[in-house]
Amino acid sequence: MTSTLLEQLNWRYATKKMDPSKKVPQEKVDTIVEAIRMTPTSSGTQPFELLVVTNSDKLAQIQKAASDQTQITEGSHLLVFAAWDNYTKDRIDAVTDLNVEARGDLPLLSAYYENLKNNYLPRDAEVNYAHAARQAYIALGVALVAAAEQEVDSTPMEGFDPAKVDEILGLKERGLRSVILLPLGYRDAESDWLAPMKKVRKSAETLVTHID
Amino acid sequence: MTSTLLEQLNWRYATKKMDPSKKVPQEKVDTIVEAIRMTPTSSGTQPFELLVVTNSDKLAQIQKAASDQTQITEGSHLLVFAAWDNYTKDRIDAVTDLNVEARGDLPLLSAYYENLKNNYLPRDAEVNYAHAARQAYIALGVALVAAAEQEVDSTPMEGFDPAKVDEILGLKERGLRSVILLPLGYRDAESDWLAPMKKVRKSAETLVTHID
Repeated sequence: MTSTLLEQLNWRYATKKMDPSKKVPQEKVDTIVEAIRMTPTSSGTQPFELLVVTNSDKLAQIQKAASDQTQITEGSHLLVFAAWDNYTKDRIDAVTDLNVEARGDLPLLSAYYENLKNNYLPRDAEVNYAHAARQAYIALGVALVAAAEQEVDSTPMEGFDPAKVDEILGLKERGLRSVILLPLGYRDAESDWLAPMKKVRKSAETLVTHID
Repeated sequence: MTSTLLEQLNWRYATKKMDPSKKVPQEKVDTIVEAIRMTPTSSGTQPFELLVVTNSDKLAQIQKAASDQTQITEGSHLLVFAAWDNYTKDRIDAVTDLNVEARGDLPLLSAYYENLKNNYLPRDAEVNYAHAARQAYIALGVALVAAAEQEVDSTPMEGFDPAKVDEILGLKERGLRSVILLPLGYRDAESDWLAPMKKVRKSAETLVTHID
Protein backbone atom coordinates (compact mmCIF):
# COMPACT_ATOMS: atom_id res chain seq x y z
CA MET A 1 0.00 0.00 0.00
CA THR A 2 1.52 3.28 -1.05
CA SER A 3 -0.33 6.00 0.74
CA THR A 4 0.94 9.29 2.08
CA LEU A 5 -2.21 9.42 4.18
CA LEU A 6 -1.31 6.20 5.99
CA GLU A 7 2.14 7.62 6.73
CA GLN A 8 0.51 10.75 8.13
CA LEU A 9 -1.91 8.73 10.27
CA ASN A 10 1.03 6.78 11.65
CA TRP A 11 3.10 9.91 12.26
CA ARG A 12 0.44 11.76 14.23
CA TYR A 13 -0.51 10.98 17.81
CA ALA A 14 -2.52 12.72 20.51
CA THR A 15 0.37 14.86 21.70
CA LYS A 16 0.40 15.12 25.48
CA LYS A 17 3.18 17.68 25.85
CA MET A 18 3.83 20.50 23.43
CA ASP A 19 6.80 22.86 23.26
CA PRO A 20 5.46 26.33 24.07
CA SER A 21 8.45 28.00 22.43
CA LYS A 22 7.42 26.79 18.98
CA LYS A 23 4.69 28.59 17.08
CA VAL A 24 2.79 27.07 14.17
CA PRO A 25 3.30 29.35 11.13
CA GLN A 26 0.16 31.16 10.06
CA GLU A 27 0.25 29.60 6.60
CA LYS A 28 0.04 26.13 8.10
CA VAL A 29 -2.86 27.13 10.34
CA ASP A 30 -4.60 28.65 7.33
CA THR A 31 -4.18 25.41 5.37
CA ILE A 32 -5.64 23.34 8.21
CA VAL A 33 -8.56 25.75 8.53
CA GLU A 34 -9.10 25.61 4.76
CA ALA A 35 -9.28 21.81 4.91
CA ILE A 36 -11.96 22.12 7.60
CA ARG A 37 -13.84 24.60 5.43
CA MET A 38 -13.73 22.20 2.48
CA THR A 39 -14.94 19.22 4.55
CA PRO A 40 -18.16 17.73 3.18
CA THR A 41 -21.16 17.67 5.49
CA SER A 42 -24.70 16.32 5.35
CA SER A 43 -26.70 18.22 2.69
CA GLY A 44 -23.85 20.73 2.58
CA THR A 45 -25.13 22.62 5.61
CA GLN A 46 -21.72 22.86 7.34
CA PRO A 47 -23.63 23.08 10.63
CA PHE A 48 -20.75 24.22 12.82
CA GLU A 49 -18.36 27.10 13.21
CA LEU A 50 -14.67 27.10 13.93
CA LEU A 51 -12.98 29.34 16.46
CA VAL A 52 -9.25 29.87 16.20
CA VAL A 53 -8.10 31.02 19.60
CA THR A 54 -4.67 32.55 20.23
CA ASN A 55 -5.64 34.98 23.00
CA SER A 56 -3.63 33.88 26.02
CA ASP A 57 -6.24 34.88 28.61
CA LYS A 58 -8.93 32.91 26.83
CA LEU A 59 -6.60 29.93 26.40
CA ALA A 60 -5.79 29.92 30.11
CA GLN A 61 -9.50 30.02 30.96
CA ILE A 62 -10.28 27.22 28.52
CA GLN A 63 -7.46 25.12 29.94
CA LYS A 64 -9.04 25.47 33.38
CA ALA A 65 -12.35 24.25 31.95
CA ALA A 66 -10.56 21.26 30.40
CA SER A 67 -9.06 19.48 33.42
CA ASP A 68 -5.95 21.61 33.01
CA GLN A 69 -4.77 19.86 29.86
CA THR A 70 -1.62 21.86 29.25
CA GLN A 71 -1.47 21.50 25.47
CA ILE A 72 -4.15 24.19 25.31
CA THR A 73 -1.66 26.85 26.40
CA GLU A 74 1.49 25.08 25.18
CA GLY A 75 0.20 24.98 21.61
CA SER A 76 0.18 28.22 19.64
CA HIS A 77 -3.39 27.93 18.30
CA LEU A 78 -6.50 26.30 19.67
CA LEU A 79 -9.22 25.20 17.26
CA VAL A 80 -12.67 25.00 18.82
CA PHE A 81 -15.34 23.17 16.82
CA ALA A 82 -18.74 24.53 17.79
CA ALA A 83 -21.85 22.86 16.40
CA TRP A 84 -25.14 24.61 15.73
CA ASP A 85 -27.46 24.20 18.71
CA ASN A 86 -30.33 23.62 16.26
CA TYR A 87 -31.27 23.78 12.60
CA THR A 88 -33.33 26.87 11.89
CA LYS A 89 -35.14 28.31 8.88
CA ASP A 90 -32.61 31.13 8.60
CA ARG A 91 -29.65 28.82 8.77
CA ILE A 92 -30.95 26.48 6.08
CA ASP A 93 -32.15 29.37 3.89
CA ALA A 94 -28.62 30.81 4.00
CA VAL A 95 -27.30 27.45 2.73
CA THR A 96 -29.92 27.47 -0.04
CA ASP A 97 -28.91 31.00 -1.04
CA LEU A 98 -25.26 30.01 -1.19
CA ASN A 99 -26.14 27.07 -3.44
CA VAL A 100 -28.27 29.21 -5.72
CA GLU A 101 -25.46 31.76 -5.95
CA ALA A 102 -22.94 29.11 -7.03
CA ARG A 103 -25.13 26.83 -9.13
CA GLY A 104 -28.01 28.96 -10.32
CA ASP A 105 -31.64 28.97 -9.23
CA LEU A 106 -32.41 25.35 -10.06
CA PRO A 107 -35.87 24.07 -9.02
CA LEU A 108 -34.15 20.93 -7.75
CA LEU A 109 -32.12 22.95 -5.25
CA SER A 110 -35.01 24.85 -3.71
CA ALA A 111 -37.11 21.71 -3.52
CA TYR A 112 -34.26 19.85 -1.83
CA TYR A 113 -33.80 22.44 0.90
CA GLU A 114 -37.54 22.95 1.37
CA ASN A 115 -37.76 19.24 2.01
CA LEU A 116 -34.81 19.46 4.41
CA LYS A 117 -36.57 22.19 6.40
CA ASN A 118 -39.71 20.07 6.54
CA ASN A 119 -37.64 17.26 8.00
CA TYR A 120 -35.37 19.18 10.36
CA LEU A 121 -37.37 22.10 11.72
CA PRO A 122 -40.05 20.08 13.55
CA ARG A 123 -37.42 17.93 15.27
CA ASP A 124 -36.29 18.42 18.83
CA ALA A 125 -33.34 20.81 19.16
CA GLU A 126 -31.28 18.07 20.83
CA VAL A 127 -31.78 15.75 17.85
CA ASN A 128 -30.70 18.50 15.48
CA TYR A 129 -27.73 19.43 17.64
CA ALA A 130 -26.64 15.77 17.78
CA HIS A 131 -26.77 15.65 13.98
CA ALA A 132 -24.82 18.90 13.64
CA ALA A 133 -22.20 17.70 16.13
CA ARG A 134 -21.59 14.57 14.06
CA GLN A 135 -20.80 16.76 11.06
CA ALA A 136 -18.18 18.58 13.13
CA TYR A 137 -16.55 15.20 13.73
CA ILE A 138 -16.14 14.67 9.98
CA ALA A 139 -14.24 17.95 9.99
CA LEU A 140 -12.21 16.74 12.96
CA GLY A 141 -11.12 13.69 10.96
CA VAL A 142 -10.07 15.92 8.08
CA ALA A 143 -8.35 18.39 10.45
CA LEU A 144 -6.25 15.63 12.02
CA VAL A 145 -5.02 14.64 8.55
CA ALA A 146 -4.49 18.29 7.58
CA ALA A 147 -2.36 18.94 10.66
CA ALA A 148 -0.29 15.81 10.00
CA GLU A 149 0.22 16.84 6.38
CA GLN A 150 1.60 20.16 7.65
CA GLU A 151 3.74 18.27 10.19
CA VAL A 152 1.88 20.07 12.93
CA ASP A 153 1.00 18.23 16.12
CA SER A 154 -2.53 18.26 17.45
CA THR A 155 -4.50 16.78 20.32
CA PRO A 156 -8.21 16.14 19.88
CA MET A 157 -10.01 16.76 23.18
CA GLU A 158 -13.51 15.92 24.33
CA GLY A 159 -12.61 16.17 28.00
CA PHE A 160 -13.80 19.66 28.86
CA ASP A 161 -16.81 21.40 30.31
CA PRO A 162 -18.70 22.55 27.21
CA ALA A 163 -20.96 24.96 29.12
CA LYS A 164 -17.90 26.74 30.53
CA VAL A 165 -16.13 26.89 27.18
CA ASP A 166 -19.32 28.20 25.59
CA GLU A 167 -19.39 30.93 28.21
CA ILE A 168 -15.72 31.83 27.80
CA LEU A 169 -16.15 32.20 24.05
CA GLY A 170 -19.69 33.63 24.05
CA LEU A 171 -21.01 30.74 21.99
CA LYS A 172 -24.47 30.33 23.50
CA GLU A 173 -25.62 33.75 22.28
CA ARG A 174 -24.52 32.72 18.81
CA GLY A 175 -26.52 29.47 18.90
CA LEU A 176 -23.38 27.35 19.10
CA ARG A 177 -22.19 24.57 21.40
CA SER A 178 -18.53 23.59 21.70
CA VAL A 179 -17.94 19.93 20.85
CA ILE A 180 -14.21 19.42 20.30
CA LEU A 181 -11.00 21.24 21.17
CA LEU A 182 -7.94 20.80 18.99
CA PRO A 183 -4.73 22.50 20.14
CA LEU A 184 -2.13 22.88 17.40
CA GLY A 185 1.57 23.05 18.21
CA TYR A 186 4.75 21.05 18.22
CA ARG A 187 5.48 18.00 20.33
CA ASP A 188 8.01 18.22 23.14
CA ALA A 189 9.12 14.68 22.34
CA GLU A 190 11.56 14.38 25.23
CA SER A 191 8.98 15.30 27.87
CA ASP A 192 5.97 13.60 26.33
CA TRP A 193 5.44 10.17 27.88
CA LEU A 194 3.25 9.16 24.96
CA ALA A 195 5.72 10.10 22.21
CA PRO A 196 7.83 6.91 22.40
CA MET A 197 4.87 4.59 22.95
CA LYS A 198 3.71 2.19 20.28
CA LYS A 199 0.51 3.17 18.53
CA VAL A 200 -2.39 0.89 19.52
CA ARG A 201 -5.06 -0.09 17.04
CA LYS A 202 -7.35 -3.09 16.74
CA SER A 203 -6.49 -5.60 14.04
CA ALA A 204 -8.35 -5.53 10.75
CA GLU A 205 -9.76 -8.93 11.75
CA THR A 206 -11.37 -7.36 14.82
CA LEU A 207 -12.62 -4.22 13.14
CA VAL A 208 -13.67 -5.30 9.66
CA THR A 209 -16.22 -7.83 8.39
CA HIS A 210 -16.36 -8.71 4.71
CA ILE A 211 -19.74 -9.63 3.29
CA ASP A 212 -18.94 -11.12 -0.11
CA MET B 1 -1.06 26.99 0.32
CA THR B 2 0.57 23.86 -1.02
CA SER B 3 -1.48 20.93 0.16
CA THR B 4 -2.22 17.66 -1.58
CA LEU B 5 -5.07 17.24 0.89
CA LEU B 6 -6.77 20.42 -0.32
CA GLU B 7 -6.48 19.18 -3.91
CA GLN B 8 -8.07 15.89 -2.84
CA LEU B 9 -10.90 17.67 -1.01
CA ASN B 10 -11.57 19.73 -4.12
CA TRP B 11 -11.43 16.71 -6.41
CA ARG B 12 -13.89 14.61 -4.48
CA TYR B 13 -17.65 15.18 -4.47
CA ALA B 14 -20.68 13.20 -3.34
CA THR B 15 -20.93 11.18 -6.53
CA LYS B 16 -24.55 10.75 -7.59
CA LYS B 17 -24.02 8.36 -10.48
CA MET B 18 -21.36 5.68 -10.59
CA ASP B 19 -20.26 3.52 -13.50
CA PRO B 20 -21.19 -0.06 -12.59
CA SER B 21 -18.71 -1.48 -15.10
CA LYS B 22 -15.74 -0.18 -13.13
CA LYS B 23 -14.53 -2.04 -10.08
CA VAL B 24 -12.32 -0.52 -7.40
CA PRO B 25 -9.13 -2.62 -7.18
CA GLN B 26 -8.81 -4.58 -3.94
CA GLU B 27 -5.55 -2.84 -3.03
CA LYS B 28 -7.26 0.54 -3.08
CA VAL B 29 -10.13 -0.73 -0.93
CA ASP B 30 -7.58 -2.22 1.47
CA THR B 31 -5.79 1.12 1.74
CA ILE B 32 -9.04 2.98 2.48
CA VAL B 33 -9.97 0.37 5.10
CA GLU B 34 -6.50 0.66 6.63
CA ALA B 35 -6.91 4.44 6.94
CA ILE B 36 -10.19 3.85 8.78
CA ARG B 37 -8.46 1.36 11.05
CA MET B 38 -5.73 3.90 11.86
CA THR B 39 -8.21 6.70 12.60
CA PRO B 40 -7.85 8.05 16.13
CA THR B 41 -10.87 7.84 18.41
CA SER B 42 -11.75 8.97 21.90
CA SER B 43 -9.62 7.08 24.44
CA GLY B 44 -8.60 4.74 21.63
CA THR B 45 -11.74 2.66 21.97
CA GLN B 46 -12.49 2.54 18.21
CA PRO B 47 -16.15 2.05 19.15
CA PHE B 48 -17.42 0.99 15.75
CA GLU B 49 -16.99 -1.75 13.22
CA LEU B 50 -16.70 -1.57 9.48
CA LEU B 51 -18.55 -3.82 7.07
CA VAL B 52 -17.28 -4.12 3.53
CA VAL B 53 -20.19 -5.36 1.45
CA THR B 54 -19.78 -6.70 -2.09
CA ASN B 55 -22.56 -9.31 -2.00
CA SER B 56 -25.00 -8.23 -4.69
CA ASP B 57 -28.13 -9.49 -2.92
CA LYS B 58 -27.24 -7.60 0.24
CA LEU B 59 -26.38 -4.49 -1.76
CA ALA B 60 -29.75 -4.59 -3.53
CA GLN B 61 -31.54 -4.96 -0.19
CA ILE B 62 -29.58 -2.09 1.33
CA GLN B 63 -30.33 0.11 -1.66
CA LYS B 64 -34.03 -0.50 -1.08
CA ALA B 65 -33.59 0.59 2.54
CA ALA B 66 -31.81 3.74 1.36
CA SER B 67 -34.43 5.47 -0.80
CA ASP B 68 -33.09 3.56 -3.78
CA GLN B 69 -29.85 5.51 -3.99
CA THR B 70 -28.31 3.74 -6.96
CA GLN B 71 -24.65 4.28 -6.07
CA ILE B 72 -25.05 1.44 -3.57
CA THR B 73 -25.27 -1.11 -6.37
CA GLU B 74 -23.38 0.90 -9.01
CA GLY B 75 -20.29 1.07 -6.80
CA SER B 76 -18.21 -2.06 -6.39
CA HIS B 77 -17.87 -1.92 -2.60
CA LEU B 78 -20.10 -0.55 0.11
CA LEU B 79 -18.58 0.49 3.42
CA VAL B 80 -21.00 0.42 6.34
CA PHE B 81 -19.90 2.18 9.52
CA ALA B 82 -21.65 0.57 12.47
CA ALA B 83 -21.25 2.11 15.91
CA TRP B 84 -21.36 0.22 19.18
CA ASP B 85 -24.86 0.34 20.63
CA ASN B 86 -23.31 0.86 24.08
CA TYR B 87 -20.04 0.81 25.95
CA THR B 88 -19.70 -2.36 27.99
CA LYS B 89 -17.20 -3.75 30.47
CA ASP B 90 -16.09 -6.41 27.99
CA ARG B 91 -15.59 -3.94 25.19
CA ILE B 92 -13.49 -1.56 27.28
CA ASP B 93 -11.54 -4.41 28.87
CA ALA B 94 -10.62 -5.64 25.39
CA VAL B 95 -9.25 -2.17 24.62
CA THR B 96 -7.27 -2.20 27.86
CA ASP B 97 -5.84 -5.62 27.01
CA LEU B 98 -4.79 -4.40 23.58
CA ASN B 99 -3.04 -1.43 25.16
CA VAL B 100 -1.26 -3.58 27.75
CA GLU B 101 -0.16 -5.95 24.98
CA ALA B 102 1.38 -3.11 22.96
CA ARG B 103 2.69 -0.87 25.72
CA GLY B 104 3.19 -3.11 28.72
CA ASP B 105 1.19 -3.39 31.92
CA LEU B 106 1.56 0.22 33.04
CA PRO B 107 -0.42 1.24 36.14
CA LEU B 108 -1.37 4.43 34.28
CA LEU B 109 -3.12 2.40 31.59
CA SER B 110 -5.23 0.27 33.85
CA ALA B 111 -6.18 3.27 35.98
CA TYR B 112 -7.16 5.21 32.87
CA TYR B 113 -9.51 2.55 31.58
CA GLU B 114 -10.92 1.79 35.03
CA ASN B 115 -11.82 5.44 35.22
CA LEU B 116 -13.34 5.28 31.75
CA LYS B 117 -15.54 2.38 32.77
CA ASN B 118 -16.64 4.29 35.86
CA ASN B 119 -17.68 7.16 33.61
CA TYR B 120 -19.22 5.27 30.71
CA LEU B 121 -20.89 2.17 32.13
CA PRO B 122 -23.48 3.93 34.31
CA ARG B 123 -24.57 6.16 31.43
CA ASP B 124 -27.67 5.59 29.36
CA ALA B 125 -27.07 3.36 26.32
CA GLU B 126 -28.28 6.14 24.02
CA VAL B 127 -25.69 8.56 25.40
CA ASN B 128 -22.95 6.00 24.87
CA TYR B 129 -24.19 5.14 21.39
CA ALA B 130 -24.26 8.85 20.48
CA HIS B 131 -20.66 9.13 21.61
CA ALA B 132 -19.62 6.02 19.68
CA ALA B 133 -21.39 7.25 16.55
CA ARG B 134 -19.42 10.50 16.67
CA GLN B 135 -16.19 8.51 16.60
CA ALA B 136 -17.37 6.75 13.45
CA TYR B 137 -17.73 10.19 11.87
CA ILE B 138 -14.03 10.91 12.51
CA ALA B 139 -13.34 7.76 10.52
CA LEU B 140 -15.74 8.95 7.83
CA GLY B 141 -13.71 12.14 7.46
CA VAL B 142 -10.53 10.12 7.11
CA ALA B 143 -12.19 7.65 4.71
CA LEU B 144 -13.31 10.46 2.40
CA VAL B 145 -9.72 11.66 2.19
CA ALA B 146 -8.41 8.11 1.77
CA ALA B 147 -10.78 7.45 -1.14
CA ALA B 148 -9.80 10.73 -2.81
CA GLU B 149 -6.10 9.91 -2.37
CA GLN B 150 -6.77 6.61 -4.19
CA GLU B 151 -8.76 8.51 -6.85
CA VAL B 152 -11.78 6.47 -5.88
CA ASP B 153 -15.19 8.11 -5.80
CA SER B 154 -17.41 7.80 -2.77
CA THR B 155 -20.77 9.04 -1.56
CA PRO B 156 -21.39 9.46 2.16
CA MET B 157 -25.00 8.61 2.97
CA GLU B 158 -27.07 9.16 6.07
CA GLY B 159 -30.36 8.81 4.23
CA PHE B 160 -31.28 5.23 4.97
CA ASP B 161 -33.38 3.25 7.40
CA PRO B 162 -30.84 2.13 10.01
CA ALA B 163 -33.12 -0.49 11.56
CA LYS B 164 -33.57 -2.14 8.16
CA VAL B 165 -29.86 -2.03 7.35
CA ASP B 166 -29.09 -3.47 10.78
CA GLU B 167 -31.49 -6.31 10.02
CA ILE B 168 -30.06 -6.98 6.56
CA LEU B 169 -26.53 -7.20 7.97
CA GLY B 170 -27.39 -8.85 11.29
CA LEU B 171 -25.93 -5.94 13.26
CA LYS B 172 -28.32 -5.81 16.21
CA GLU B 173 -27.25 -9.23 17.46
CA ARG B 174 -23.68 -7.98 17.39
CA GLY B 175 -24.48 -4.87 19.44
CA LEU B 176 -23.97 -2.58 16.46
CA ARG B 177 -26.03 0.17 14.82
CA SER B 178 -25.42 1.34 11.27
CA VAL B 179 -24.66 5.07 11.09
CA ILE B 180 -23.16 5.82 7.66
CA LEU B 181 -23.05 4.15 4.27
CA LEU B 182 -20.16 4.90 1.92
CA PRO B 183 -20.32 3.34 -1.56
CA LEU B 184 -16.97 3.22 -3.35
CA GLY B 185 -16.76 3.25 -7.12
CA TYR B 186 -16.07 5.43 -10.11
CA ARG B 187 -18.09 8.41 -11.23
CA ASP B 188 -20.10 8.22 -14.43
CA ALA B 189 -19.23 11.85 -15.12
CA GLU B 190 -21.40 12.16 -18.22
CA SER B 191 -24.57 10.97 -16.49
CA ASP B 192 -23.98 12.55 -13.09
CA TRP B 193 -25.82 15.87 -12.84
CA LEU B 194 -23.65 16.89 -9.91
CA ALA B 195 -20.29 16.21 -11.61
CA PRO B 196 -20.12 19.51 -13.55
CA MET B 197 -21.56 21.62 -10.73
CA LYS B 198 -19.46 24.08 -8.80
CA LYS B 199 -18.53 23.00 -5.29
CA VAL B 200 -20.39 25.04 -2.66
CA ARG B 201 -18.78 25.98 0.62
CA LYS B 202 -19.27 28.83 3.05
CA SER B 203 -16.62 31.52 3.05
CA ALA B 204 -13.93 31.48 5.73
CA GLU B 205 -15.47 34.73 6.98
CA THR B 206 -18.76 32.95 7.63
CA LEU B 207 -17.28 29.82 9.14
CA VAL B 208 -14.28 30.99 11.14
CA THR B 209 -13.87 33.42 14.04
CA HIS B 210 -10.43 34.45 15.20
CA ILE B 211 -10.00 35.23 18.88
CA ASP B 212 -6.60 36.91 19.09
